[in-house]
Amino acid sequence: MFDKNYKIDDLMEIDNQYILHTYERKKIRFAYGDGSKLYTPCSKQFIDFGSGIGENILGYGNPKFVKGISEQARDLISLSNYYLVEPQALLAKKILELSGFDARIFFGNSGEDANRCAIRIAKKFGDKDRDKIIVLGNQFYDRIMGENDFVSEYFICAQDIDDIYSLVDHKTCAIFMEFSEDGVEFLRTHMVQITHLADFLKKKKILFMVDENQSGVYRSGEIFVSSLYGLMPDVLTISGGLGGGVPIGATICSLKDIFTHGDYENVFGGNFLSSRAGLLVFEALEEEHKSGNLERTIDLFNIQLDKILKNFSNLFEKKVGVGLMLSLVIKDEKNQKNIIESAFEEQLLILKGDKDRIRFLPALNISIDEINEGFERLHKACEKL
Amino acid sequence: MFDKNYKIDDLMEIDNQYILHTYERKKIRFAYGDGSKLYTPCSKQFIDFGSGIGENILGYGNPKFVKGISEQARDLISLSNYYLVEPQALLAKKILELSGFDARIFFGNSGEDANRCAIRIAKKFGDKDRDKIIVLGNQFYDRIMGENDFVSEYFICAQDIDDIYSLVDHKTCAIFMEFSEDGVEFLRTHMVQITHLADFLKKKKILFMVDENQSGVYRSGEIFVSSLYGLMPDVLTISGGLGGGVPIGATICSLKDIFTHGDYENVFGGNFLSSRAGLLVFEALEEEHKSGNLERTIDLFNIQLDKILKNFSNLFEKKVGVGLMLSLVIKDEKNQKNIIESAFEEQLLILKGDKDRIRFLPALNISIDEINEGFERLHKACEKL
Repeated sequence: MFDKNYKIDDLMEIDNQYILHTYERKKIRFAYGDGSKLYTPCSKQFIDFGSGIGENILGYGNPKFVKGISEQARDLISLSNYYLVEPQALLAKKILELSGFDARIFFGNSGEDANRCAIRIAKKFGDKDRDKIIVLGNQFYDRIMGENDFVSEYFICAQDIDDIYSLVDHKTCAIFMEFSEDGVEFLRTHMVQITHLADFLKKKKILFMVDENQSGVYRSGEIFVSSLYGLMPDVLTISGGLGGGVPIGATICSLKDIFTHGDYENVFGGNFLSSRAGLLVFEALEEEHKSGNLERTIDLFNIQLDKILKNFSNLFEKKVGVGLMLSLVIKDEKNQKNIIESAFEEQLLILKGDKDRIRFLPALNISIDEINEGFERLHKACEKL
Repeated sequence: MFDKNYKIDDLMEIDNQYILHTYERKKIRFAYGDGSKLYTPCSKQFIDFGSGIGENILGYGNPKFVKGISEQARDLISLSNYYLVEPQALLAKKILELSGFDARIFFGNSGEDANRCAIRIAKKFGDKDRDKIIVLGNQFYDRIMGENDFVSEYFICAQDIDDIYSLVDHKTCAIFMEFSEDGVEFLRTHMVQITHLADFLKKKKILFMVDENQSGVYRSGEIFVSSLYGLMPDVLTISGGLGGGVPIGATICSLKDIFTHGDYENVFGGNFLSSRAGLLVFEALEEEHKSGNLERTIDLFNIQLDKILKNFSNLFEKKVGVGLMLSLVIKDEKNQKNIIESAFEEQLLILKGDKDRIRFLPALNISIDEINEGFERLHKACEKL
């Protein structure tokens, strides 16, 4: 939908006038999408290698998904969580059966909600005596604490695995790690240590909690990064693509009886619409995974990305990430803005990662043509620099 | 939608097995809704005097609303907040033009998100020197702090207006009040004091923040309770019916430049789908308000509720609330459960309030027939006790 009464300049002005200035909005007006393609009102076509910021995991306008969402919007969008919410129960069943996790789930509206629920679980688990949570890596620490910087005294930041051992004490109730791109790189190079750590935590009765808000829901090629690496955390959080763009987050918890009635709630969390969206996402991705399509898509995307890395070794140092959560590390970070801008001029959307990265989070069902066409555009964009 | 493969007992078992037990689910399976009526798969019809918990503010299956949501789901559900989000800008414009507030808006996914943003605003406003927020009333204190009980030291609980004056000191950056049912009762009986307080806060450069997550969005008969009572808070939060059931919350802030780029963010907040939902809700309610329909609906609902109060003075003590946010206070709180259960047997949904209340948050466009039929059922339900 776009409102014909407004030109883009009007809309930028309206945005500037009425929205608190927390985001630097790029001046571009997208009216609709189809697959991994986005269109302006005058049908200028962009390929989106970011699927939003990873949330449009089935791309735009996916017919089955849209049909399901529209039916659900017509039938029932939301109802109190004090009645049975059929698609929520079925979504939980689907996630746990596909993952093989012996756990239960709580639903919120976002990754933040999911992490807050994890923290609440840790706190309940630790009771009054143990309220310290050790988080790995500064970045994650900032992200999880961003909004809650009142409370930093309860969170301890560890720099590496050895640091965790030295920080654990009788007050520690949980370790919280993020399996984002950096987290996955870390995991890949520290598998033995992390497996040992998991055993150690089990013995010490300290929760092993993992944030897969970016990486979960098949983005790594498997349902969770934890599954890919054979880990079984006590608590695992997901959101990102879980609702295909509809706000939802989930906290998966192996302590099945940690909560009793009234311990925790979320008014909108896992309502009929958002959990139906989740169910449609998982049904579609289960099929992509089983059929081998997802693996083929990951292979093709990585081959193409490797080519860019090879052809533009003047610009890029290396590739990081896993599956369809990938970044190119830029040699001169001053180039980040230029690369993204140049790609944009070629009608390709890529994401900012850390300041020395460009980031790729395409829809998991992106087509071969879209991949090839997108990389042609990226090639042209890089040539211009 | 309902899945014919499952019977209700299967679903209750699935829910029990796979969902963390934070909610006590009532064993009832709703498959679809129409107006203020909800239906089980075998078409047993209930009237919902709670519109979920107030979020289905246009009722169920509203044709214009569903059509708009479905179009938006087909076109574009979500995109990074770093591009222009057309319906978000238009929703902000609509809210501010209708309210006459000279402010800017930040969007999140829920009332909790909206309140957290308010707290962040207070914190930024107070800078490092002033980090104390005074909240009025224990109940609100618990609700807003529920999840954040790590941080209670930064929040001070005041019991009444005099208490606020005595608690304000050089560390105070904001006062936060909730205009729920109790809040509105308090407001009604303390208008002079609150107006004085607002002046005092302005002079002291302390923010006057108001939570209208339950009461905002025309539930009082006016766009905000603050508007109804001629108040102009510095920060006002809304959610509830804002998205007609789609998760969204908004923080309205008169400090237009409190945030700069990067100060705050919310990945899903105010995405295309949820802000389009908000726009559709406001367009519909603007019409209900202008045409006088909303006022007539409020009058009829209140007349009928007054009749119940009069006819069942054995059960009820008084009516509290405003507009279509109403409760009956129960004489003997042991009766709460019986009344709700008896209404349920008559196929009428009403909500639990505090332990001595039953609560009514009907859709704002509930029809005359639905009101009359619903109250007949409530009458029968009360007669049985």
